[in-house]
Amino acid sequence: MQKIKAQTLKGFRDFLPGETRKRQYVISKLTGIFESFGFEPLETPALEYEEVLMGKYGEEGDKLMYRFKDNGGRKVALRYDQTVPLARVAAQYSNILPTPFKRYQIQTVWRAENTQKGRFRELLQCDIDTVGSSSLVADVEIIACVLTSVKELGFKNVQMLINDRAIFGGLEPKFVSAIDKLEKIGKEGVISELITKGMNKQDAEKLVRSFDDSKPTALVLKIFDLLNNLGFKEGVDYVYKASLARGLDYYTSTIFELVSDDYKSGSLAGGGRYDKLVGMFSGRDIPAVGIAYGFDRIIEAMNQLNLFPKDLTTTEVLVTIFSQDLQNNSLEVSSKLRASNVNTEVWLDTEAKLDKQLKYADQKGIPYAIIIGPDEAKSGKLVLKDLKNRTQEVVTIDEAIGSVKD
Amino acid sequence: MQKIKAQTLKGFRDFLPGETRKRQYVISKLTGIFESFGFEPLETPALEYEEVLMGKYGEEGDKLMYRFKDNGGRKVALRYDQTVPLARVAAQYSNILPTPFKRYQIQTVWRAENTQKGRFRELLQCDIDTVGSSSLVADVEIIACVLTSVKELGFKNVQMLINDRAIFGGLEPKFVSAIDKLEKIGKEGVISELITKGMNKQDAEKLVRSFDDSKPTALVLKIFDLLNNLGFKEGVDYVYKASLARGLDYYTSTIFELVSDDYKSGSLAGGGRYDKLVGMFSGRDIPAVGIAYGFDRIIEAMNQLNLFPKDLTTTEVLVTIFSQDLQNNSLEVSSKLRASNVNTEVWLDTEAKLDKQLKYADQKGIPYAIIIGPDEAKSGKLVLKDLKNRTQEVVTIDEAIGSVKD
Repeated sequence: MQKIKAQTLKGFRDFLPGETRKRQYVISKLTGIFESFGFEPLETPALEYEEVLMGKYGEEGDKLMYRFKDNGGRKVALRYDQTVPLARVAAQYSNILPTPFKRYQIQTVWRAENTQKGRFRELLQCDIDTVGSSSLVADVEIIACVLTSVKELGFKNVQMLINDRAIFGGLEPKFVSAIDKLEKIGKEGVISELITKGMNKQDAEKLVRSFDDSKPTALVLKIFDLLNNLGFKEGVDYVYKASLARGLDYYTSTIFELVSDDYKSGSLAGGGRYDKLVGMFSGRDIPAVGIAYGFDRIIEAMNQLNLFPKDLTTTEVLVTIFSQDLQNNSLEVSSKLRASNVNTEVWLDTEAKLDKQLKYADQKGIPYAIIIGPDEAKSGKLVLKDLKNRTQEVVTIDEAIGSVKD
Repeated sequence: MQKIKAQTLKGFRDFLPGETRKRQYVISKLTGIFESFGFEPLETPALEYEEVLMGKYGEEGDKLMYRFKDNGGRKVALRYDQTVPLARVAAQYSNILPTPFKRYQIQTVWRAENTQKGRFRELLQCDIDTVGSSSLVADVEIIACVLTSVKELGFKNVQMLINDRAIFGGLEPKFVSAIDKLEKIGKEGVISELITKGMNKQDAEKLVRSFDDSKPTALVLKIFDLLNNLGFKEGVDYVYKASLARGLDYYTSTIFELVSDDYKSGSLAGGGRYDKLVGMFSGRDIPAVGIAYGFDRIIEAMNQLNLFPKDLTTTEVLVTIFSQDLQNNSLEVSSKLRASNVNTEVWLDTEAKLDKQLKYADQKGIPYAIIIGPDEAKSGKLVLKDLKNRTQEVVTIDEAIGSVKD
């Protein structure tokens, strides 16, 4: 038999059941909060016409995009984020979508990142956006929804950094992105980067100094006011940060980033208001505001902070097979358990020793096992083994269902 | 402003909220049943090395596969089904996966189909498979799980057609696929296709006649026996079908297909046992059995048969804004509703007329609206409007929460 090498591409991942369950857990919690704020689900295709995506993410984005010609010679590209597809959808279905259109979207994106930096090329993105409202309440709602969602996941020390991109005025994007690094590389670092990028020394120093005593804009103060009314606390839940700039060029006013003192490997979410982007497809300005979660960082942070429930295994019982003769007894018990909404796996063959079957249950983290041997078959009872506490009892099926459900 | 055309690629679809909710509903029901049978979730990358996928789906598959060179010059291909990636995973992680490995997988696949035939190029696939067991109980469990799951979705007249691919013995795949069309194109049609494909007339007629009085093999009879023990009825829930062949070449014994008398546009699910495929990556035979749902057909059939719940909208209340002055009152009420687990959307700006806000709620299918005008603000009460029955009452917030939750 010719053997083909079983391998995944660099930067791509398989998610085995344990990991997938964690991802499902986070998605389920987030979705619940999104829906509690009235956001609705949207899905868009993995492939788009290249021209829909190109030029929206800066030079870097165009370079990292997966692009190719399909079998019909069309230039296509894989989804790079969910904001540009949202803008396309808002334009394409403007006659049937409600205004405002509040949607959440949780789909994969692809970016040909340098994997040596520990980056992935296939990522789950998780976004909420409100399209068609210029009300500051929309900005505030995004912030409130995100803060609520990460608290629901169990995060304690989380804070939304907030700024108004207008304070960077006519500053060229290349200079803005240098300022965004103030925290990371310090004042001197930013000054020298500004100079490298073409600013003269005096202007660079003046610009960097200006962030020392920068005051929140009127827009930021209004947002703070609304957040206070909703019960969020300045300095705790959110804070003004003058040097916050966000990388992407398309933000027009409010920008925000979620950070945690307990997790220093980067922000957990980031976004802002982008009132011009949707217009690229609509031919008229349509206001919009939204945020994207760093899904992998959320997972990593939750692992580090032990925020996942101990047991995400969904199977509750393994029904073992004692012997060929007694297989039907075990199959019948399995059916009854499932009919009572107990997630039940039944052992499949008739030859394995009981020990092997119980080890399998342990490996999968299944908490209970049921054994039906000749005695039990006669008495109409069964052995219920609690695999966590290593105890067992002989009970009826109804008693077993009761114990497992408790 | 330069306008870019907002369009999706042929064969690709956007799923707006109403449609996405239906898909989520089906996924949630199916997942629940899969887990009740002990299947665990798996996710694999959208992109694989081309050599992992090529040659596994016949000539047709290679032709329809989305393939390209990535930025690093690697030959890559988009996921075409979930069975080959499963085979790769089973080989790649053989040291850490439990045996048997029972997994479900619900991810997108891409096929450059002819869209004029009404086919899609991006499809959600939904599979359950058991790898590492040659026990017939594994085959039976797949069948039982699928029958249970579609009943859970509300299907009534569904039947699993079952056959043993061994009855086609040494017959070339091209002839087997002709026989699979017996129902569709009739005996004469199959005979002439067999002749076109190179069989002589006498053999073709004899072969087709042989299905008239063909008897189930011993394997099929054993499966029937086990299904009976689980409470499924022959002739109702499942039936023998001698001409069932299934297109794909990799099936080795049991094959099955789920059909419904209420839906004539094709089978709802199909699969079988494939004991050789996983070995391509492992270098040794590993038995496996599984099934793939036709997700789009399930959705289409459920639409036709009215099997979706009337209201899948998740937002329960729209809190309207009476005026700028009273915005904070409405925001506070929204927070309280959410804190009581009521999915609540609040109107975002302060200028819209009440009529417009209520129309928006109707458009989105939100069942309740809350109004806080000057009188209510004074009395600490609110107006709760039932938008379905067109009734309203003045109540406290706690009473409103009670009414909405009922």
